[in-house]
Amino acid sequence: MTTTGERAAALDREDPLMPFRSRFLAVPEVLAYLDGNSLGRPLDRTPDRMAGFVRDQWGARLIRGWDEGWMEAPVRVGDELGRIALGAAPGQVVVGDSTSVLLYKAVRAALALDRGRTEIVFAAADFPTDRFVLQGIAAETGAVLVPLPAPHDGGVTSEQVAAAAGPRTAVVVLSHIAYRSAAITDVRAVTAAAHEAGAMVVWDLSHSVGALPLALDAWRVDLAVGCTYKYLNGGPGSPAFLYARADLLPRLEQPIQGWMGADRPFEMGERYAPDAGVRRFLSGTPSIVAMQPVLDMLGLLDEVGLTAVRAKSEQLTRFVIERFDAELAALGVRLASPRDDRLRGSHVTLDHPAFESMLPALHRRGVIPDFRRPDGLRIGLSPLSTSFAEVDAGLDAVVEELRFRV
Amino acid sequence: MTTTGERAAALDREDPLMPFRSRFLAVPEVLAYLDGNSLGRPLDRTPDRMAGFVRDQWGARLIRGWDEGWMEAPVRVGDELGRIALGAAPGQVVVGDSTSVLLYKAVRAALALDRGRTEIVFAAADFPTDRFVLQGIAAETGAVLVPLPAPHDGGVTSEQVAAAAGPRTAVVVLSHIAYRSAAITDVRAVTAAAHEAGAMVVWDLSHSVGALPLALDAWRVDLAVGCTYKYLNGGPGSPAFLYARADLLPRLEQPIQGWMGADRPFEMGERYAPDAGVRRFLSGTPSIVAMQPVLDMLGLLDEVGLTAVRAKSEQLTRFVIERFDAELAALGVRLASPRDDRLRGSHVTLDHPAFESMLPALHRRGVIPDFRRPDGLRIGLSPLSTSFAEVDAGLDAVVEELRFRV
Repeated sequence: MTTTGERAAALDREDPLMPFRSRFLAVPEVLAYLDGNSLGRPLDRTPDRMAGFVRDQWGARLIRGWDEGWMEAPVRVGDELGRIALGAAPGQVVVGDSTSVLLYKAVRAALALDRGRTEIVFAAADFPTDRFVLQGIAAETGAVLVPLPAPHDGGVTSEQVAAAAGPRTAVVVLSHIAYRSAAITDVRAVTAAAHEAGAMVVWDLSHSVGALPLALDAWRVDLAVGCTYKYLNGGPGSPAFLYARADLLPRLEQPIQGWMGADRPFEMGERYAPDAGVRRFLSGTPSIVAMQPVLDMLGLLDEVGLTAVRAKSEQLTRFVIERFDAELAALGVRLASPRDDRLRGSHVTLDHPAFESMLPALHRRGVIPDFRRPDGLRIGLSPLSTSFAEVDAGLDAVVEELRFRV
Repeated sequence: MTTTGERAAALDREDPLMPFRSRFLAVPEVLAYLDGNSLGRPLDRTPDRMAGFVRDQWGARLIRGWDEGWMEAPVRVGDELGRIALGAAPGQVVVGDSTSVLLYKAVRAALALDRGRTEIVFAAADFPTDRFVLQGIAAETGAVLVPLPAPHDGGVTSEQVAAAAGPRTAVVVLSHIAYRSAAITDVRAVTAAAHEAGAMVVWDLSHSVGALPLALDAWRVDLAVGCTYKYLNGGPGSPAFLYARADLLPRLEQPIQGWMGADRPFEMGERYAPDAGVRRFLSGTPSIVAMQPVLDMLGLLDEVGLTAVRAKSEQLTRFVIERFDAELAALGVRLASPRDDRLRGSHVTLDHPAFESMLPALHRRGVIPDFRRPDGLRIGLSPLSTSFAEVDAGLDAVVEELRFRV
């Protein structure tokens, strides 16, 4: 066993969360799954949950299911998500649609609050879909996009936001954790800076929810969206979520008015009136089937607690950086993620021009990292399903394949 | 056995589709499921498909699944749906979002084609979510809503549309089959009348898809949307679909610009450019898990063919009308659906003020119809999963409960 292998084995032995790894479906031929930040693994109980839902809920209760819990599911699952992962009191989180659609609704709602404010501040380096959604909103509403330059390392700072936001700023739209670098932005400080300028904030939590504790209520966040298929293990394309602060909710109006967001869905009234609560962000019928897998992961996160999850996440990413320092840097790899544990999310991005050509070989070896063009290998470390030995084996493969090529 | 019971048994014996009924999950305690028009039953193979998808696809292929078929799933499933149920050549149908969200996108895209046309013609009696969506679009775009009065019986006519549509009409938005009365509108004639006025059409096919053959290409339909949880048995809240005519597609732009609708999703470019095809109507990541159940029903519909499905549907609804004439009319019940088979979809609505109070008793007897306020009992007859004996038993219960009350 290599030195790093011994160290990984020791870390696994000392890891209090190691027993929980067996709660996930085992895949013998996958040596190292290093892409839980793109798609989390299913829990081992999830196949039975899905079959059971079809048989015992949909199949047996049929249309009665809507009166027996499905109707409330978007807010009930939202409340659970809020309590376990978001730091949100009940009644502020709804599950449904996709992150893009909910981001659209959130930003449109924020823009509609004050027609005198027409600027949207955002980060130029953010995930493209976020930029695309904002470009579309700018085109249709006449809002003006104000890009923040990408900071060299680290996330967007409150100083940047304070400098960019002013009396014309309607909303600041940012990611909590940058999808490429994993740099963490200080949600509390940036939100305060936006509020100082009289602007709203909309946070994209896709790369942070489930990987570290959030405190949306305490941070005075206005609106937030995020996906459930990364660190919440909801499955490919599982429904997204939206958070809206309770005291703001009565004033928030989104443009896609459907019956599921209406005040009395079964009244089928003449005119649309939005639900008093966070349901108003729904439009059509959300998939109840697709909401099931995330319940398994929420249960596990509730059992373990996000403080412990975050502690392991820091250890895992630090382990990658240790191997970067010891071996990868000498092979010409660059570290594209922050070194400071406190400023780094649950993935580490390593850049090298040879990485793209290595991907088939890594896959053949059972090593599955993420890749972002042009040359970023994203090592995604979903804390509960990833062992140190797995990371070590994956990095062994990266080092070996890279040595062939440099 | 009653006379009607004997007749139902004979119809079941003669029914060439009866053998297919065993393909659906059996629920012993449900005597008569008469709400397949709200939520179709799962097929008996669907629980295994769901468990297998989680274990063998999501669980085993993990992120690789996106390269191995999930990325194309929204259009691949759309093509299958187009071929089997819509009369649509490939490349014009996409699956994702909810019907409300896709209706929003379709109408916004139609409105954007010609800024000089600002009127939306719609049917005042249509499903509320359709009206709500249109009200929201009118409020944000300044479009003017032009309601067509509800015809006494039957669907909206091409004469009505010809009279209402003019040089200011941008789009005519109608349901193929009315959600309450089941009245069928002549899609081909109404589409032609709209085109005569230079307007686009957007059809809501929620109550027709899977219950009768459609020919969207032949009918020269511009845009259409619909849900997959009624006669396509996709499960509660399963993803919706959108059809856009191929020659129109390059000019159609919808406002929710997300990465899944972009030209090169993995390029992560600076500016959004829509996909050349029907993918442009996607925004965020659609649920691949939630798309699975509908594959089972599409396979079955492909095996049986929609012409045979429609033939049984007409027989089933006619059987309800026969019992209405023989017994229910004398008890004060009114028929709210067309008598002419050709003008009636796959449900029959019966009106009586006592129906609402009867629902708990019907449920206790294992009879599950649909109900629409104030007094409409919708007898939904999903052709492949419903037997004549089942309908007969359900109507027996309705007659008996009604006799207690009148």
